Amino acid sequence: MTRARCLIVLLDGLGDRPSVELKKRTPLMYARKPFIDRLSREGVNGLMDPVGPGIPVGSDTGHLAILGYDPYKYYTGRGPFEALGAGIRLEPGDVAFRYNLATVDENWRLIDRRAGRISTEEAEVLADSLRDLAADLSKGGVEVIIRSTVEHRGVLVLRGPSLSHKVTDVDPHKENVTVEMPRPTEASEGARRTAQILAELIKGSHALLTVHELNRDRVRRGMMAANALLTRGGGVMPNLYSLNERFKIRSSVIAGGALYKGVCGAAGMEVVNVEGATGTLKTNLAGKFRAARDRLRVDDLVFLHIKGTDSASHDRSPASKAQFIERVDEEFSRAFGDTPSGLVICVTGDHTTSSITGEHRGDPVPLLIWGDEVRRDGVESFDEVNCSKGGLNRLRGLDLMNVLLDVANVTEMFGE
Amino acid sequence: MTRARCLIVLLDGLGDRPSVELKKRTPLMYARKPFIDRLSREGVNGLMDPVGPGIPVGSDTGHLAILGYDPYKYYTGRGPFEALGAGIRLEPGDVAFRYNLATVDENWRLIDRRAGRISTEEAEVLADSLRDLAADLSKGGVEVIIRSTVEHRGVLVLRGPSLSHKVTDVDPHKENVTVEMPRPTEASEGARRTAQILAELIKGSHALLTVHELNRDRVRRGMMAANALLTRGGGVMPNLYSLNERFKIRSSVIAGGALYKGVCGAAGMEVVNVEGATGTLKTNLAGKFRAARDRLRVDDLVFLHIKGTDSASHDRSPASKAQFIERVDEEFSRAFGDTPSGLVICVTGDHTTSSITGEHRGDPVPLLIWGDEVRRDGVESFDEVNCSKGGLNRLRGLDLMNVLLDVANVTEMFGE
Repeated sequence: MTRARCLIVLLDGLGDRPSVELKKRTPLMYARKPFIDRLSREGVNGLMDPVGPGIPVGSDTGHLAILGYDPYKYYTGRGPFEALGAGIRLEPGDVAFRYNLATVDENWRLIDRRAGRISTEEAEVLADSLRDLAADLSKGGVEVIIRSTVEHRGVLVLRGPSLSHKVTDVDPHKENVTVEMPRPTEASEGARRTAQILAELIKGSHALLTVHELNRDRVRRGMMAANALLTRGGGVMPNLYSLNERFKIRSSVIAGGALYKGVCGAAGMEVVNVEGATGTLKTNLAGKFRAARDRLRVDDLVFLHIKGTDSASHDRSPASKAQFIERVDEEFSRAFGDTPSGLVICVTGDHTTSSITGEHRGDPVPLLIWGDEVRRDGVESFDEVNCSKGGLNRLRGLDLMNVLLDVANVTEMFGE
Repeated sequence: MTRARCLIVLLDGLGDRPSVELKKRTPLMYARKPFIDRLSREGVNGLMDPVGPGIPVGSDTGHLAILGYDPYKYYTGRGPFEALGAGIRLEPGDVAFRYNLATVDENWRLIDRRAGRISTEEAEVLADSLRDLAADLSKGGVEVIIRSTVEHRGVLVLRGPSLSHKVTDVDPHKENVTVEMPRPTEASEGARRTAQILAELIKGSHALLTVHELNRDRVRRGMMAANALLTRGGGVMPNLYSLNERFKIRSSVIAGGALYKGVCGAAGMEVVNVEGATGTLKTNLAGKFRAARDRLRVDDLVFLHIKGTDSASHDRSPASKAQFIERVDEEFSRAFGDTPSGLVICVTGDHTTSSITGEHRGDPVPLLIWGDEVRRDGVESFDEVNCSKGGLNRLRGLDLMNVLLDVANVTEMFGE
């Protein structure tokens, strides 16, 4: 039986809703994307509910589901995947948080969740300045690891006996409100202790960051001081049965953001780093598609993650989302326009992000699978409405890997 | 409420993929089948995942699911269904295997998995010659039952205390490899003992078959000696709540192959034997359809199984699959062309078999339900793509009996 290799091009937050700005069309309907439309025309199409109909999911839960891991079973929080993606090897019992470097006033009112989107370099200097504080806290028996990643983003890991991820998010997810210190969300000693250590760390770092020379300088230049660590998404790393073992394949991921590397890494995929893959609208798309093409010489499955679509939606800019899709189409076509045989291509998203409200929503995402052996269904264009008339009908994220690796003749029979 | 009677025409391995040989069409798209297309046009259509999207299933697991029994719960192996279909009444604790009468060389290298498709008559003579060996082994407290069925196929049952089906398949499923004796797949005394008895039987029968006069004669005539029993699919019979009790109906099955009689028999359906129903491409289609028509005078549900579609796919011959579908359509029309009222007709498959690779695949199968009261959906032709646009959308095999018997006004209300 001839096995095909699989490429998944996942556009984050791809699904959308029609907006007045785009004349009642979604960005996918509006964008000129001849190559993806060709794949759609020559492929089989459908809709996919990442977790379930009408359930808006995060990038973490969405990705877990799409890789075949039920997030209701395996997901405790985003933190551990961010940590893994940032290169921290988590140990059993570690509790990991995502954090934002943010700006608060003297009464802990939140001014800016991203400290004016501070640069990666400056954020690193500030994170490094907390090393002594972390070491001090570690004397109590709990090791504290702080790692800055991209811009305001970072990861915090607590390592030690009897910790718990059952504490509230410190990041209130909106500005102009007072930041509350973490509280335990269950009546366990571990949760009480974790909340206490976190609070000490957050208060202590605020004191240090407020007087840090870099922040004083920023304020002098009229910029915001990055003076608070706002944690969220605390969790422990689940033990995932790797994709490679499950399907007897070799797989890799190409992504900018730490979270995606983390989730895919937890699923056992090799993380391929591409220069200029920043996970922003200005990412090195050409380089990412080229790297995917290269990896398909050795891997059975390559997962290419592109973040820009989601960012444009969060910025409530359907037009720039459509523009970005057009850029993706061009670079995709440049690298794969010859549609080599022996390849199966899947294009989809991890969730819908409404560029009207800027929020993740629960509408299904469009899905196409292209390959030599698929049942062409007559769908003419890849978007939310046309795909609803496709030959795949409506799938769940948990089904995607089975469906895709079946098209590629990789999966094994159940029964005989 | 008027109850209708139901006919299921199940074409084994019906679903397929488009092939270059049929100009990028599937055998169903290619075949001329005016009667089935009429049923489709006048009926409601959809796709069905026998077990789940993208999961390639065997005929055993597929049939279990379609009859409403979750194979993840009830399936241990194919053996017990084959045994039941071959007329062996299994007792609790019995471990049953399917076997192939095969040809191996002196080093147990597998030459032909089917001993040159030995005839049913010759295979029976050889199986009978193992009676003394079986009796000898039975002295150890485990009864050995060997029953030859069709051509190279047969069933082996071990009966006694503390046996286990947790042993490896002896049939390697491919030729030109060395056959390995059975090994336990779990660390239990039962599995160890079962593997040991099986190995004695397989080695002992090889010694006897090699010198059997019939085999010597075959070799003299330039044919292959049928000198090895290759077991596979060991399992124990699950305790199934019968279809008749579940739905308060009377049901029957018309099939050639032992497996189908076995699965349906385990579900409590009466097995109707039709002369010339061989389960091959040359089966007595006319007789089977006539028998179905007859049984519908007394039964609420008749399950008519036709194997030829699957066999043509395994032979990688999409054209002969299409031809066979045309023959089915003719005989179907001859018996049911008057589409009597008070009848609900369902046409579907148990899984997709790719006639490109010759393997079972996980693509959904097309499904139509015809009857006086169904919601006609405008589908014009019965095939994998047209059905995807039908009024049933995409169902799971486990839902089929409920849907069908509901259309027939048979099922009872849940709640009030």
